[in-house]
Amino acid sequence: MTSKSADIGVLGLGTMGANLALNIAEEGFRVALHNRTTKKAFDLRDDNGELAANLLPTETMEDFVAALKSPRVVLFMVNAGAPVDEQIDLVLPLLSPGDIMIDAGNADFNDTVRRTKRVQGTGIHFVGMGVSGGELGARHGPSIMVGGEESVWQHLKPILQPVAAQYHGEPCVAWLGTDGAGHFVKTIHNGIEYADMQMIAEIYGILRDGLGLQASAMAAIFADWNARGLSSYLVEITAAVLAETDPGTDKPMVDVILDEAGQKGTGRWAVIEAQKLGIGATTLEAAVSARGVSSRRAERQSAAALYDGVTLPAAGFGGDTASLAELEDALETAKIIAYAQGYATMAEASANFGWNLPLGEIARIWRAGCIIRSRFLDDIAKVYDTGETVVNLLQAPSFVERVARGQAALRQVVAKAALAGIPTPALSAALAYFDDYRRARGTANLIQGQRDLFGAHTFRRLDKEGVFHHQWPAIQDG
Amino acid sequence: MTSKSADIGVLGLGTMGANLALNIAEEGFRVALHNRTTKKAFDLRDDNGELAANLLPTETMEDFVAALKSPRVVLFMVNAGAPVDEQIDLVLPLLSPGDIMIDAGNADFNDTVRRTKRVQGTGIHFVGMGVSGGELGARHGPSIMVGGEESVWQHLKPILQPVAAQYHGEPCVAWLGTDGAGHFVKTIHNGIEYADMQMIAEIYGILRDGLGLQASAMAAIFADWNARGLSSYLVEITAAVLAETDPGTDKPMVDVILDEAGQKGTGRWAVIEAQKLGIGATTLEAAVSARGVSSRRAERQSAAALYDGVTLPAAGFGGDTASLAELEDALETAKIIAYAQGYATMAEASANFGWNLPLGEIARIWRAGCIIRSRFLDDIAKVYDTGETVVNLLQAPSFVERVARGQAALRQVVAKAALAGIPTPALSAALAYFDDYRRARGTANLIQGQRDLFGAHTFRRLDKEGVFHHQWPAIQDG
Repeated sequence: MTSKSADIGVLGLGTMGANLALNIAEEGFRVALHNRTTKKAFDLRDDNGELAANLLPTETMEDFVAALKSPRVVLFMVNAGAPVDEQIDLVLPLLSPGDIMIDAGNADFNDTVRRTKRVQGTGIHFVGMGVSGGELGARHGPSIMVGGEESVWQHLKPILQPVAAQYHGEPCVAWLGTDGAGHFVKTIHNGIEYADMQMIAEIYGILRDGLGLQASAMAAIFADWNARGLSSYLVEITAAVLAETDPGTDKPMVDVILDEAGQKGTGRWAVIEAQKLGIGATTLEAAVSARGVSSRRAERQSAAALYDGVTLPAAGFGGDTASLAELEDALETAKIIAYAQGYATMAEASANFGWNLPLGEIARIWRAGCIIRSRFLDDIAKVYDTGETVVNLLQAPSFVERVARGQAALRQVVAKAALAGIPTPALSAALAYFDDYRRARGTANLIQGQRDLFGAHTFRRLDKEGVFHHQWPAIQDG
Repeated sequence: MTSKSADIGVLGLGTMGANLALNIAEEGFRVALHNRTTKKAFDLRDDNGELAANLLPTETMEDFVAALKSPRVVLFMVNAGAPVDEQIDLVLPLLSPGDIMIDAGNADFNDTVRRTKRVQGTGIHFVGMGVSGGELGARHGPSIMVGGEESVWQHLKPILQPVAAQYHGEPCVAWLGTDGAGHFVKTIHNGIEYADMQMIAEIYGILRDGLGLQASAMAAIFADWNARGLSSYLVEITAAVLAETDPGTDKPMVDVILDEAGQKGTGRWAVIEAQKLGIGATTLEAAVSARGVSSRRAERQSAAALYDGVTLPAAGFGGDTASLAELEDALETAKIIAYAQGYATMAEASANFGWNLPLGEIARIWRAGCIIRSRFLDDIAKVYDTGETVVNLLQAPSFVERVARGQAALRQVVAKAALAGIPTPALSAALAYFDDYRRARGTANLIQGQRDLFGAHTFRRLDKEGVFHHQWPAIQDG
């Protein structure tokens, strides 16, 4: 190990950390490696002979820090929460003013804001960086969302640009704003990812239970859709998952997998932050909540037995080509609404936290590398490229046209699923949001009347300015 | 003012504090009064001559505390958050071991847990107490949810039982568990209240926009429904609000009120806590989110103009008696599902925080005094009275029967509203939850396949124990 020769140090060599380190090394940078179990660092070098010259495993934290060029760049890839603080405690005393710590894990952006404050005044910089794309993305090019001081970004840019995914030659990495901006955007990315996956799963449920299709037939449908407006990594892998056969049983893979979805908490963070901001990110909420329902499988099975005989107004969907086109249009329309909710959450956060988030740039760096990558994100980028103010994606002319065209299909699918007893929590949340959002006269006037009656909460009026309280008749009892 | 003669002190004489103080005084207890603007305390006594002997206004915090019998009971009714901590800072140094502080405001239960820890070891007790019923409830009998040490409850019981609402002679107050239990239950109460109000508002939207009814006709419908299964304070006041005429314009009151709903944050706390617990309280989420959408009125109006010409598959609902009965059944069924979600959240919290929440008792103390009071809560109490384990209200025999009967109506209403372009975020969330919850084989198997493909997150299988990872085919790009 040569002292002060590494361009960057990677601390934490789990799947994501190891793959990111290899990616950086492959781009020609020298990477110091450290891990609690130090053997992992040496194994990583030894298992990757062609990159060995750029991989510098270290035995101790002191060696690790000593291996770095000044200003030192230490990238943490450890589990979110306390482990990050523990690693900061160990590294911070060894650093000097000008050095840079990067938390590249999935952090709660509130923690990133707190950690940024913690190092304030020390001259040491803290960067909260969202990395999306899973294992393969980390290895061959993830989408990277950077938050922190802009001057620090200038220093990191030469390393991160080649490491990031490339979309037709444009690197999928950008500086998005100060302190927690990068991790916040990553959180919303994951929330959108949950919504996108849930909507696909709902359509899968309709194809399976409403149209009675087998996995291979469904694989062909998703593969077909992937050639048009729905073209995306998630639709592509849906087709791949559905096409796969379990070698042990010769059954479709999807038919042997247990129907309980796990989650690592980032989708939940997204909906909690949206709620705190007063944004109705209802498709994201529906997706996170549906994973919760899925995980109570024993409860679902006893409920299924109890409600086995309920009468449904309609049995199925009818499996003709027209209904497949309807499902395709419904999914595309609901997807636009889900992304609009995610973008509305980011717009509100941007105003609230003073970040000035570059919403078009965010769409651009999501076009490759990350899980929600798709052509559709290029359409979103174009909306912001026009330079006009976009209050909500649902009001951008290109999306108005698409949603106006697709909304009837979404209505039909939600209505048919309701009658057939097939749950569509995210699709119906999308439709309800759209109809609520496009309603000039809502129904909250009734709620304001109720609140004023029982709690003297006051209300405003349509016909004059001011805040009013009405003397409602006394209610005897309830 | 007589020293050491007051049974309790009320600190903070806003609407809720003042009314609660009068209520306590009326029940024969001597109440010391204090307020930042001290004049309010004296005015309260002077304006309530018949209770003056039991109202002891004080000029200073020292006088206030000196007026209390030992052990002193100080009830705070100030705004949630920092103001509570500020008042604790002022009062705590004046108290002695054995004294009791009660936060009777709407606190985030996490704050109550923190404050309980703060006084630990001092011998001074902290009680987090939820009080529901608005201004009138506080004055004439609220529903009271007490959290803290059980021994302290024994001391407070003689005061709180007569002060609370009475349901056929049973006081609507109970000790629910340690530290934050009372405030947590109050938070869920408010979340359920949001869902209940939102569902009523959605039905109002259908009656108004789908059936084209006037406010007076709708008032008669809600009054009619109030005589059957939907009988509740909220349905009763809905009829009252709809029946009211604006004296200035002679128009229905509801037609002049602006359609932007306010919120004080407790509904939001409920959905955030439900999310943290992994419970899909989707009807509560839909309700809170819908208030958020309502508050963006200017945005809604421009969206309405942009989507003015969209083609809807159906125009309206058709206003015959059959469809009114359908709406009634749909609302009742959705309401059961919403309450089931609220109760599932409390059950999970109880296990998670070690509270052993008495779920039947909670239904009993909600039967009078609070905003969601209704006969229906007596039905819930009866479910828990059987002593059988209730995994979810939707699995209790009496509710299975009702939901099985009413679900078809809920389906029809959700489907018709979807086709007619009338938003039903909470009603459709209720239906989707029900269908997801009663599905033995869900669709999360697809999600687990996707997650294993892109992130090696592993999955479980239907046919054997263990955790598996599959070698999926490589995906070129997205």
